[in-house]
Amino acid sequence: MPLSGFPELLPGQRFVENATLDRLRRTFELHGFAPLETPAVESLDELLRKGEIDKEVYVLRRMHADDETGDTGHAGLGLHFDLTVPFARYVLEHAGHLEFPFRRYQIQKVWRGERPQEGRFREFTQADIDVIARDTLPFHHDVEIARVMAEALGALDFLPALRLQVNNRRLIEGFYLGIGAADMPAVMRVIDKLDKLPADAIAAQLRSEAGLDERQASLCLQLADIRSSDSTFVGRVRALGVEHALLDTGLGELAAVLDGCASITGVTVEADLRIARGLDYYTGTVFETRMAGFERLGSICSGGRYDSLASDGKTTYPGVGISLGVTRMLMPLFQRGTLRASRTVPSVVLVALADDDARAECDALAQALRLRGIAAEVAASPQKYGKQIRYAERRGIPFVWFPASASAVGQHEVKDLRSGEQVTADPASWQPPEEDLHPQVVSQKVEQ
Amino acid sequence: MPLSGFPELLPGQRFVENATLDRLRRTFELHGFAPLETPAVESLDELLRKGEIDKEVYVLRRMHADDETGDTGHAGLGLHFDLTVPFARYVLEHAGHLEFPFRRYQIQKVWRGERPQEGRFREFTQADIDVIARDTLPFHHDVEIARVMAEALGALDFLPALRLQVNNRRLIEGFYLGIGAADMPAVMRVIDKLDKLPADAIAAQLRSEAGLDERQASLCLQLADIRSSDSTFVGRVRALGVEHALLDTGLGELAAVLDGCASITGVTVEADLRIARGLDYYTGTVFETRMAGFERLGSICSGGRYDSLASDGKTTYPGVGISLGVTRMLMPLFQRGTLRASRTVPSVVLVALADDDARAECDALAQALRLRGIAAEVAASPQKYGKQIRYAERRGIPFVWFPASASAVGQHEVKDLRSGEQVTADPASWQPPEEDLHPQVVSQKVEQ
Repeated sequence: MPLSGFPELLPGQRFVENATLDRLRRTFELHGFAPLETPAVESLDELLRKGEIDKEVYVLRRMHADDETGDTGHAGLGLHFDLTVPFARYVLEHAGHLEFPFRRYQIQKVWRGERPQEGRFREFTQADIDVIARDTLPFHHDVEIARVMAEALGALDFLPALRLQVNNRRLIEGFYLGIGAADMPAVMRVIDKLDKLPADAIAAQLRSEAGLDERQASLCLQLADIRSSDSTFVGRVRALGVEHALLDTGLGELAAVLDGCASITGVTVEADLRIARGLDYYTGTVFETRMAGFERLGSICSGGRYDSLASDGKTTYPGVGISLGVTRMLMPLFQRGTLRASRTVPSVVLVALADDDARAECDALAQALRLRGIAAEVAASPQKYGKQIRYAERRGIPFVWFPASASAVGQHEVKDLRSGEQVTADPASWQPPEEDLHPQVVSQKVEQ
Repeated sequence: MPLSGFPELLPGQRFVENATLDRLRRTFELHGFAPLETPAVESLDELLRKGEIDKEVYVLRRMHADDETGDTGHAGLGLHFDLTVPFARYVLEHAGHLEFPFRRYQIQKVWRGERPQEGRFREFTQADIDVIARDTLPFHHDVEIARVMAEALGALDFLPALRLQVNNRRLIEGFYLGIGAADMPAVMRVIDKLDKLPADAIAAQLRSEAGLDERQASLCLQLADIRSSDSTFVGRVRALGVEHALLDTGLGELAAVLDGCASITGVTVEADLRIARGLDYYTGTVFETRMAGFERLGSICSGGRYDSLASDGKTTYPGVGISLGVTRMLMPLFQRGTLRASRTVPSVVLVALADDDARAECDALAQALRLRGIAAEVAASPQKYGKQIRYAERRGIPFVWFPASASAVGQHEVKDLRSGEQVTADPASWQPPEEDLHPQVVSQKVEQ
């Protein structure tokens, strides 16, 4: 019986996940991000430093609890619940061995003891990219992070349409300061409900809970309504007539992110002025991402700029980063059957086996193909060829190879199981179509 | 402060680990092994089914223990301590969706609450391959597993010399039966100490603890002394004059494994008749692997044939597999400084930045390189070129690109930081040497 909240994939689905992770890696590395991995286990002191989600942490103990205190020296251990806290710890611990600005990507599982529900798991994979510096981090890295993740998502061309939504905390805060909103956190908290409540209700709450007057509430709602996939949002904000230096800075930064992403294809990058990322530690650019047809999952890829990712008291490390919820993104697509692999094994070729004496010859033949990068397996037993062909078909293996010694024509022959075409072939030179070399990700549009 | 037993790699080391895992994956997939991943978390019922190493299991609980019983429905959760137990559970759970014989590889972290020591970690990565079938699994899969892992290890050409040692439980058991040893487990337990004790002491223990007479003890020691990298061991065993049908079967199987691995390069495959893999569930072929200069680590890659990897009462699933301790193999090499990456970032090229106004041009230039698969980054700030070059050197980035607009010759120029050579270049066609495209693993022979 599967454990609720701990997703497990069938082989074909795992191929899709691997293809996803490989493409992400490739994009991240092309942009100079170094691979990093931290242990799944951290001390509870580290994990609870921020103090907010302690209920979700899985704490470890060894099976025999009385052994615990005796020999470990560190009884308080838990599983990491994100990759940001471990990265901050890593930077402080290894600062002397790192070169700044330090770009890293980190693709790992994380664990949260949450109640499972759609898009929420107890064990799931995240893919994070961050740039971190010592003392100061130039703004252009915000543009870089947006562009790299947008490009990475754009390369996942088998996914439903994605929208990377960008906003800027300075813009929002400057706007709120400009209209004289005293209780900014309250305003943000209310605006954050815009997806769930109608505008009237939000306006009423802005008055009752955030102490705004009607004009202020209306301006906040108008701001939150602005969206554009280029920098035209600037003019629309200006037209609201609110003035503040922080607003100017935020508008300039957000426009720069949009301009920097203008050449991105495969994913929509847009300014969305209602995105605020709650009340957490972001200080400038903020990111969220929606997947078409799966808006109810919320954001599948989020992040932003933080002025102090880590600090050891003497040195502060500002950063900007974004975290993709790989499991959260893929699992609903698997559950709906909209994503699958073209086959469930890596093999391009099944070498047919005439009888047990032919095994050595077939093994050598398969090995000749492998040496040229063509994945191959030899039939497990010398069943009738019809059975061997069906074995290949069930796995989605595209080609069956008939060795010369067993072939009616006395030459090697290879059969394409999709077309049924069978041709003579030379194991030293035969080449399958490029797209057959590895299992392909197949996406089917399914009605929501 | 690092947690003892939870190794953490610096960026260059992580490149080496990734290169290792990528090569393993490539070999496994060329042979038709499908990638598989199971959750890190299993129910304690599953983990403790075999009952032997319960002390090593890390048990999970949510931070607030009183929440536990209320909403999870499965209070008994732990981290997997190997990849075999989860694979057996996976096969039973998903048998209806799998095609047999089923080949899978699984590269994941596992956890054991052991006391840390050299080569023993609490969190470490294993790479397992197994073939599993329903009811019966032909012997030739033993040969296949040996060959695939030997080929995979042989492709890790930056490692110290590796010896894959093969034996066969039927051979040993047949021999012991042939000489009339009544207490076989006792014999094996004593022979297993051959690495630690002198032959005299073993002979004495064979008499005192396993009830053998002098001739029997001597024959056991002579058997354990036989080693060969081809099938000549068969004649040497025969020369001992012991006869048993099971011995014949075992000799035939072991010779077949050796013959099957004859073409393997880069790693020594040898019959070693003292290998027994203790008293566990192996029933035929058994594997161990030693790394030259690191024999004290014990076996870094072990496995064998098991007649019942899993069983649901009705169906039994025999299998053969082998598990490589990736962390156990790499960490001592890192600690000794014998393995490193040629650079600590993926970037092949650093694009030099003349001034902040040139950033857009430099970004476009870097992107042109990336589109052709060349990892590139733009200098973080427009420092003097000498500083930008030193920045690249510290990271091991091999090339610095000077854009045409900032070049003294009015053309793009690229400087190889190793030779110092600077030449004009076209971003649409310039190509670095193939070996510079990705960080390379560099191994240095260091005296043990």
